[in-house]
Amino acid sequence: MFSIKISPRFGDIDALGHVNNTVLPIWFETGRTPVIQIFDTELALDRKTFPLIMAHTDLDFLSQIYFKYEVEIRTSISKIGTKSFTVHQEAWQQGNLCAKGNCVIVYFDFNANQTAPLPEDKKKLLSEHISVNS
Amino acid sequence: MFSIKISPRFGDIDALGHVNNTVLPIWFETGRTPVIQIFDTELALDRKTFPLIMAHTDLDFLSQIYFKYEVEIRTSISKIGTKSFTVHQEAWQQGNLCAKGNCVIVYFDFNANQTAPLPEDKKKLLSEHISVNS
Amino acid sequence: MFSIKISPRFGDIDALGHVNNTVLPIWFETGRTPVIQIFDTELALDRKTFPLIMAHTDLDFLSQIYFKYEVEIRTSISKIGTKSFTVHQEAWQQGNLCAKGNCVIVYFDFNANQTAPLPEDKKKLLSEHISVNS
Amino acid sequence: MFSIKISPRFGDIDALGHVNNTVLPIWFETGRTPVIQIFDTELALDRKTFPLIMAHTDLDFLSQIYFKYEVEIRTSISKIGTKSFTVHQEAWQQGNLCAKGNCVIVYFDFNANQTAPLPEDKKKLLSEHISVNS
Repeated sequence: MFSIKISPRFGDIDALGHVNNTVLPIWFETGRTPVIQIFDTELALDRKTFPLIMAHTDLDFLSQIYFKYEVEIRTSISKIGTKSFTVHQEAWQQGNLCAKGNCVIVYFDFNANQTAPLPEDKKKLLSEHISVNS
Repeated sequence: MFSIKISPRFGDIDALGHVNNTVLPIWFETGRTPVIQIFDTELALDRKTFPLIMAHTDLDFLSQIYFKYEVEIRTSISKIGTKSFTVHQEAWQQGNLCAKGNCVIVYFDFNANQTAPLPEDKKKLLSEHISVNS
Repeated sequence: MFSIKISPRFGDIDALGHVNNTVLPIWFETGRTPVIQIFDTELALDRKTFPLIMAHTDLDFLSQIYFKYEVEIRTSISKIGTKSFTVHQEAWQQGNLCAKGNCVIVYFDFNANQTAPLPEDKKKLLSEHISVNS
Repeated sequence: MFSIKISPRFGDIDALGHVNNTVLPIWFETGRTPVIQIFDTELALDRKTFPLIMAHTDLDFLSQIYFKYEVEIRTSISKIGTKSFTVHQEAWQQGNLCAKGNCVIVYFDFNANQTAPLPEDKKKLLSEHISVNS
């Protein structure tokens, strides 16, 4: 499991006094950087070689998140398929699981504009971060 | 169905040359303003009376979205429950359905910090925007 | 002068009930797309040929912007230099000038990692959008 | 001086391969939380009592910021006036000052919709974080 800490910023809080729902995908993206690094070791983000594309995201909002306290984003791998894998993520604040979600990331050849099989060595590296339950 | 047109901005495009996945929730939120207005006629966003909270979102990314062309966000109601309703949304660019998603919005009493039944008059107004298929 | 209309979204409103200050740079960037198009006709955003880099931005917040009403973003060119030009932008809501700002954009060779002189044909195109007063 | 560390996220990087200019105001806002806390000890963000409003921001972009490395945001107070104060902020990556900026924050009575004099005790607290040079 990967873990990062995030401090909400003033503008993350919407008119209802809690973190706006559109902020979570941004925090979760930050939490996925080590997963990206498995595929792009140098984090060069070179459009000609970068091999991942987002296919699906889902999010459940369980408890309101407030400005005052740090949020922990936990990231793990929940499924490894032939051409894609699933990342499970959670946002915790003050001991509460406030939001959780999944995203399906597809191994993708941007030049051919089509999916491709996940290389075995990448599957192995992903499997080191598999979540026990999610 | 509600429809708005959005022009992608420079910073919506990520290193891969397409609209970043975290941008869609922001566009979809913009598209939901007429739905919010059913419950908050004056769009006052008063924390003491605003009655909605987001419980769930999901998104499928079907085709890449680029900088050059306008995007149409279509918004309709796909389900009306006892204490919540579901909004279905689609992003279209150049005749292609590029992304689609749903969100479950719960009728919520922020003072009591608990859900509440959807009033019948609001259900009726929502039902005028029900999607035929989604 | 270029003009676009923007509908604030729910999450643009912060805890104080008005549009958060970090939203204006995003709206202004959207308003600058026609300026970018002078330099990148196809809006291809190709890193090997795109010739602009942001050097400076400033913003004055004159009046609060609210959720309820559309905002007009007005964009014009206020200065054309040898290697850079200045864009002046304004945000208007309900007949009020709510925010105004400038940005200095430099003609830049990303391959050589250095500034370059603005081509005469581009200067001419920019000059067609010069603001009378700003 | 206050200091925080920020990890750029995938979507902060634009089509040119560097952090988009609209991201800096967001990072700088995160860096200002301890300044806000001087005025709102509990970080309650209560619209009826919160006493600050943004009047001006400016930003100079000195060097490109990339995805790979952490960014340090340094925040200090550069000027304390009668009704407002100025915050100076810097973004550092890999030993380079990549961006710097200032914002003028006004002491503001949202109920009366007008400025008000900075209380002496707040001036004193601000003065503990005055920057030596900026």
